[in-house]
Amino acid sequence: MFSGLSHSSPQQSSDPFPLEISAIGEAGLLQIVQRYCPDQVVGDDAAVLAAPKGQLVVTTDVLVEGVHFSDLTTPAHAVGWRAVAANLSDLAAMGSRPLALLVGLGLPGSTPVAWVEELYRGMQACCAPWGAELVGGDLCRSPQRFVAITALGSVQPGRAIERKRAQPGDWLIVTGPHGDARAGLELLLHPEQGSSAAAAEREQLIRAHQYPRPRLDLLPLLERIPDPLRLAGMDTSDGLADALVQVCQTSGVEARIEAERIPISAALQHVFPGQALEWALYGGEDFELLLSAEPALAQRLLEQLPGATWIGEVTGWDPQGTVWLSDGQPLSRQHAFQHF
Amino acid sequence: MFSGLSHSSPQQSSDPFPLEISAIGEAGLLQIVQRYCPDQVVGDDAAVLAAPKGQLVVTTDVLVEGVHFSDLTTPAHAVGWRAVAANLSDLAAMGSRPLALLVGLGLPGSTPVAWVEELYRGMQACCAPWGAELVGGDLCRSPQRFVAITALGSVQPGRAIERKRAQPGDWLIVTGPHGDARAGLELLLHPEQGSSAAAAEREQLIRAHQYPRPRLDLLPLLERIPDPLRLAGMDTSDGLADALVQVCQTSGVEARIEAERIPISAALQHVFPGQALEWALYGGEDFELLLSAEPALAQRLLEQLPGATWIGEVTGWDPQGTVWLSDGQPLSRQHAFQHF
Repeated sequence: MFSGLSHSSPQQSSDPFPLEISAIGEAGLLQIVQRYCPDQVVGDDAAVLAAPKGQLVVTTDVLVEGVHFSDLTTPAHAVGWRAVAANLSDLAAMGSRPLALLVGLGLPGSTPVAWVEELYRGMQACCAPWGAELVGGDLCRSPQRFVAITALGSVQPGRAIERKRAQPGDWLIVTGPHGDARAGLELLLHPEQGSSAAAAEREQLIRAHQYPRPRLDLLPLLERIPDPLRLAGMDTSDGLADALVQVCQTSGVEARIEAERIPISAALQHVFPGQALEWALYGGEDFELLLSAEPALAQRLLEQLPGATWIGEVTGWDPQGTVWLSDGQPLSRQHAFQHF
Repeated sequence: MFSGLSHSSPQQSSDPFPLEISAIGEAGLLQIVQRYCPDQVVGDDAAVLAAPKGQLVVTTDVLVEGVHFSDLTTPAHAVGWRAVAANLSDLAAMGSRPLALLVGLGLPGSTPVAWVEELYRGMQACCAPWGAELVGGDLCRSPQRFVAITALGSVQPGRAIERKRAQPGDWLIVTGPHGDARAGLELLLHPEQGSSAAAAEREQLIRAHQYPRPRLDLLPLLERIPDPLRLAGMDTSDGLADALVQVCQTSGVEARIEAERIPISAALQHVFPGQALEWALYGGEDFELLLSAEPALAQRLLEQLPGATWIGEVTGWDPQGTVWLSDGQPLSRQHAFQHF
């Protein structure tokens, strides 16, 4: 689609004198990014969309250079992918189908045009398979690059997944392995680490950091389950431990987790055996889901959702929301990522 | 509502040792900002809202410290107000009723807690009168303060105001005076300027910069007009000249503007007589609306909408979208604000 633009080929990212956005100005940059938006939403003060069937679900996520990404760890295409994935993961965690995304961008004038194009390609690559479109945005000069994305989705009334709906007797399941994203970041920041890693293992871990997959594949399964649907949960973007404690505290329940059942990839176990469990619990950014459901529903998800794994049970009511590990220790959120 | 919080009183903004957000952490800051959100949307990965009647209208705007605001020109309360006003103005320009807003915030850890609270007070003060609520957001560490707001609104199908719908014979009207916001900025940046200004004049101009009013008061008028409703236009946030050229180019029409009919406040005319017309055309950030409508509808708006003023007419079709001033010169966008 962009083959006619000489500055759009990825190999030009390493051009020592790349074309900068200050050279094409706001109007030139707008022309480029609007190619990634449907024609009918371009050119007005706001975009007009069909109202969703059911309820509207909205979420926003901000990624800042130097905090969430850097040229060292994340090429522009992956920055775009991750920014969209973080938002789509929030929608998946609500049981919500994505509709559209809006993109607020802060950029220094020295940003290469190719960086912005790769960013948009990455955003589009992540959302297009799910039928979601980039319907609007705002471009702004800023000393620091940042990406602020808002995602809109829909859910049928009464069928949203909520944190507070866990109940005693529920099984706790996660949708996939944890800790790989943290290990991938480690390999990007300290390439000398993980010398025992095979190339395929390195690639798997780095890919988990750069290209996390939002678990929207849960939705078709949920849609085949008749009313009433009671499912509690959230995504594990801030770490599995954080998600466990949040779901239990919000629901007022206690849970028991079999730590040895937490899925950890063979690559993570092989390359970072000493850190694997800690990163699985506290690493964050795996963008899997933690779900709490009565056993029959949980069993169905375990059978039908790739990667889904039983890790424990909700054992009773508890206003403190204590999460007990199988060694008898309560789980702490103290290692969780803090922004400030 | 916040009187119980010792750090929430505005006068503490000038405290030489204000409480910083790094001292209360992300959890503490979340507790504070969630007080400005309705209870039912707090605590999940995304907010669930009733789907709008009619079509969904979405827009996003980013404000960056040092570009759109600074402590010199804009106290936190006004930063919040302006950020929301910019978004609500986009909704007004679409003829859309606001529903909800999402707020992405980037903040250095040294930001005073009181600054964030004042920001939220300002956001709430601007959106509450229109029934719009702050339904979600994201907080993130950033070397530079920025505010990325997404606003959601609704409009009945076929009744959105669009830039491209101007037609020959239309009257062009603006909803209020232009140039005051630019003059207010001048007074804030160079307090020694405008020595001839009375205190009330200074205050009016500064207020126009810090507290622009989105022209959502247009909506009840529009709702009383039966189908079909054809109204073209946009907001003048990037300057009246920019809006005129954009509407004419997008619609493929030419227009003739009586420059002396462009409304300029007595304060602006008195304090900055030499710059008044230039700032009215190119100053920007007045957040009024430019509207193009057939004479009967335009007449009705002129009679019923406070501040509405006839400034010219659409005189014919023109693929170039030329805007002629009454002195026979074409209007140029060359002075318009460019981000990059």
